[in-house]
Amino acid sequence: MSEFITDKNIDINQWYNDLVIKGGLADYSDVRGCMVIKPYGFGLWEEMKAVLDKKFKDTGHQNAYFPIFIPKSLFELEEQNAEGFAKECAVVTHHRLKVDPNNKAKLIVDPEAKLEEELVVRPTSEAIIWNTYRNWIQSYRDLPLLINQWANVVRWEMRTKLFLRTAEFLWQEGHTAHATEAEAKAETMQMLDIYANFAEEYLALPVVKGLKTEHEKFAGAVETYCIEALMQDGKALQAGTSHFLGQNFPKAFDVKYQAEDGSEQYAWATSWGVSTRLIGALILAHADEKGLVIPPKVAPIHVVIIPMYHAKNEEQNQILTQKAKEIKDSLNKRNISVLIDTDKTKRPGFKYAAYELQGIPLRVTIGPRDLELGKLEICPRHSGEKSLIDLDHLDDEIIRVLDEIQVGIYQKALSYRENHTREVDSYDAFKSEIEKGGFVYAYWDGTTETELKIKEETKATIRCIPLDTKSNEGKCIYTQKLSSLKVLFARAH
Amino acid sequence: MSEFITDKNIDINQWYNDLVIKGGLADYSDVRGCMVIKPYGFGLWEEMKAVLDKKFKDTGHQNAYFPIFIPKSLFELEEQNAEGFAKECAVVTHHRLKVDPNNKAKLIVDPEAKLEEELVVRPTSEAIIWNTYRNWIQSYRDLPLLINQWANVVRWEMRTKLFLRTAEFLWQEGHTAHATEAEAKAETMQMLDIYANFAEEYLALPVVKGLKTEHEKFAGAVETYCIEALMQDGKALQAGTSHFLGQNFPKAFDVKYQAEDGSEQYAWATSWGVSTRLIGALILAHADEKGLVIPPKVAPIHVVIIPMYHAKNEEQNQILTQKAKEIKDSLNKRNISVLIDTDKTKRPGFKYAAYELQGIPLRVTIGPRDLELGKLEICPRHSGEKSLIDLDHLDDEIIRVLDEIQVGIYQKALSYRENHTREVDSYDAFKSEIEKGGFVYAYWDGTTETELKIKEETKATIRCIPLDTKSNEGKCIYTQKLSSLKVLFARAH
Repeated sequence: MSEFITDKNIDINQWYNDLVIKGGLADYSDVRGCMVIKPYGFGLWEEMKAVLDKKFKDTGHQNAYFPIFIPKSLFELEEQNAEGFAKECAVVTHHRLKVDPNNKAKLIVDPEAKLEEELVVRPTSEAIIWNTYRNWIQSYRDLPLLINQWANVVRWEMRTKLFLRTAEFLWQEGHTAHATEAEAKAETMQMLDIYANFAEEYLALPVVKGLKTEHEKFAGAVETYCIEALMQDGKALQAGTSHFLGQNFPKAFDVKYQAEDGSEQYAWATSWGVSTRLIGALILAHADEKGLVIPPKVAPIHVVIIPMYHAKNEEQNQILTQKAKEIKDSLNKRNISVLIDTDKTKRPGFKYAAYELQGIPLRVTIGPRDLELGKLEICPRHSGEKSLIDLDHLDDEIIRVLDEIQVGIYQKALSYRENHTREVDSYDAFKSEIEKGGFVYAYWDGTTETELKIKEETKATIRCIPLDTKSNEGKCIYTQKLSSLKVLFARAH
Repeated sequence: MSEFITDKNIDINQWYNDLVIKGGLADYSDVRGCMVIKPYGFGLWEEMKAVLDKKFKDTGHQNAYFPIFIPKSLFELEEQNAEGFAKECAVVTHHRLKVDPNNKAKLIVDPEAKLEEELVVRPTSEAIIWNTYRNWIQSYRDLPLLINQWANVVRWEMRTKLFLRTAEFLWQEGHTAHATEAEAKAETMQMLDIYANFAEEYLALPVVKGLKTEHEKFAGAVETYCIEALMQDGKALQAGTSHFLGQNFPKAFDVKYQAEDGSEQYAWATSWGVSTRLIGALILAHADEKGLVIPPKVAPIHVVIIPMYHAKNEEQNQILTQKAKEIKDSLNKRNISVLIDTDKTKRPGFKYAAYELQGIPLRVTIGPRDLELGKLEICPRHSGEKSLIDLDHLDDEIIRVLDEIQVGIYQKALSYRENHTREVDSYDAFKSEIEKGGFVYAYWDGTTETELKIKEETKATIRCIPLDTKSNEGKCIYTQKLSSLKVLFARAH
């Protein structure tokens, strides 16, 4: 049990906040609903970005940048999208401040600098991007247009939670234009697969791929696909979405192209995104009573080396520091990021706890006796199981251990999910299982009416219609109607 | 002369816009003052970012992210800074839109969603960052705090120009806190040197390092250092700034630390930034009548390979394409980015012009006859001088040529600057030289009064007090007073 953080079993929300703040990932700010992402948290985001960016580029996408402001008259053009986000929009109405005539040390909004048209701070960029695509797309030769943007977006939230729900957050949003419906659908599924693979392979986060219900889909989409993960508080977390937008935006923004046969056609659209919310998912899925657990594949620091200094033997201390530096240099060449703790004022136990809190995947201690035997002690963060490894072939050994850690973290999260996933066939069983937390599979009659009643009565939502369920039939737990829709329910973040 | 773009000698502003838009770097948007950065332009920015980010990290800085919104009451705390930016602030006043009761297809700002306190969209982040640093800095052990942020900022501009002056732009802003004045000053100079080195070595842009006058310094700074470059329109362009902020922000935001001796001290501050404006600088410094000229060290694409296809010899065409792919694979391994143009519908001349417009540093043509002789034709963009190179050791040769191109572009810009830099000792000579464009060195009496009169009468500003001028004395061109300040004048962007 860490002395730094709240006991998870006593107050899981406070435990989460402690992890974020004391783990050095983020901080509250004095701006309502906005957080500060601290260097360690931002380093984690940079690792994630690098992996995703490469996956996007490897599949032919290019990055670009579009304005943060959307004039209201453009924003409202795709009505479903506009109405879906209207309640969360930060709106710029003025372009100047001036000195307060009553108090020279204060500023006031200059009433003479009112904008003719209000600007919405982007909550998502479909409107501004499709308004631009109209000029970029003339012919089938301009398609597909495969663009991604890394950006900040703002959605005014009343109840905020660090990383999981903040007014401003960082994300990437892909926006693609295609000549055919089939191609746009294939893109939608390709990006969903990229997200699922990223979550499982890099974040060590098992996910369920599925289709959102009509009620839960993105405002302006024809179909929304998502990946859903289970957190240790028993709640589901939507970790990424990929939308097939059909021709909604191309029609709203009049984006047509000349086809090979000379006819004029509307383009087909997709959009897809993941955000800094993934950092929240990572924390809530893997952290434990000692602190954060960061999977090696996205960890800003892979290994912390702690030389076991002796207060009265400076000569020996220098040998330990020297050895630590040699190991660091050697590991750096293999793209392993290493921190050496050369602080001689702190006890090893204090240091262990601090790095466990930060979730650094592997701790290596260098002690004089082990060193004489050609050994080092290692301790993976997620298991806490110490062992000795040979100094010979150290780099290979550490890389092997880091791979094991990556798999170990995933397996632990997968076991958790398996132990918290049930299938029910009655509404009574459903209610009792939902109350316990976790994923619950059940048949649903496919109507929004039933979906909303279940939500009202149990606070559980349909997370998705999983892509891999078989087409058996069963009875809707609420209406008893026969249905082929076995869907995934959970309470959600 | 390119058929795509306006003649530089006829209309240099239209030439510039053509380069940006037709060269594929950026586009106007329907949002007042905001531009869209297109994939090729963003690729250029990504190259620049990667180099700078590494330089920042190599000097101990870490990235973080702070809110885009600054509550007015925080923004106004450092008065000079607040007043300096007040006229350019986009202000968020509401957090919701609602359906227009008179027209269901329209949205209006919901008057009931007025914010209690207005939020400024950051024009620069000193206020929000120093407000955060107050919680992060307690002891001398927390210092130095070396943080950088990559972000978008908004400064409301009345007259905009793509990349050079837009309401929203992308930049990096470093914000550091130090225990001593000397350390903060050293940081200020270190970052100025990093910018100067980046401009000269990577952007091939010769710059003058100097100190801004009191009148021209950053609002809230004690001293502003800058790098100034000369553009082909005869105007100066400020390409980067590094500010020694003294204790202005620490005092305004009450950021104190406990020193080693137990005393309480205010921290010392710096900030420094470069922006997407550098892309504008790159264009205006190097482009020519055929289009863009991108230095290899920041080029998204280094080499374009054009196989010389024959309409009736598909077998031979396949050999050429195959050879191009081999060369590309081989160059990719050396981190050279290569584009192959396999389009058989377009003439070589058309392709040449298109890639010249884009400024791709090196063109390689593969023709059947050259290939038989074991040769390839290359043509550096900046010189247009074709030559044949051996297929043996091709990679080394191309790397050597790219290095030559980098140096060649720099030398060309340096010659231009040398040919457009004069020193004058009378106001008449000054006025006539300023009219011609270029850099003009002259003595100045050190008063803001004289500086403003010269500006009013000639539109020339003091770009900087260069760091490398010797401390001779001369007469101020305006007041004839003796002064040791030989300063750099120019009209500026």
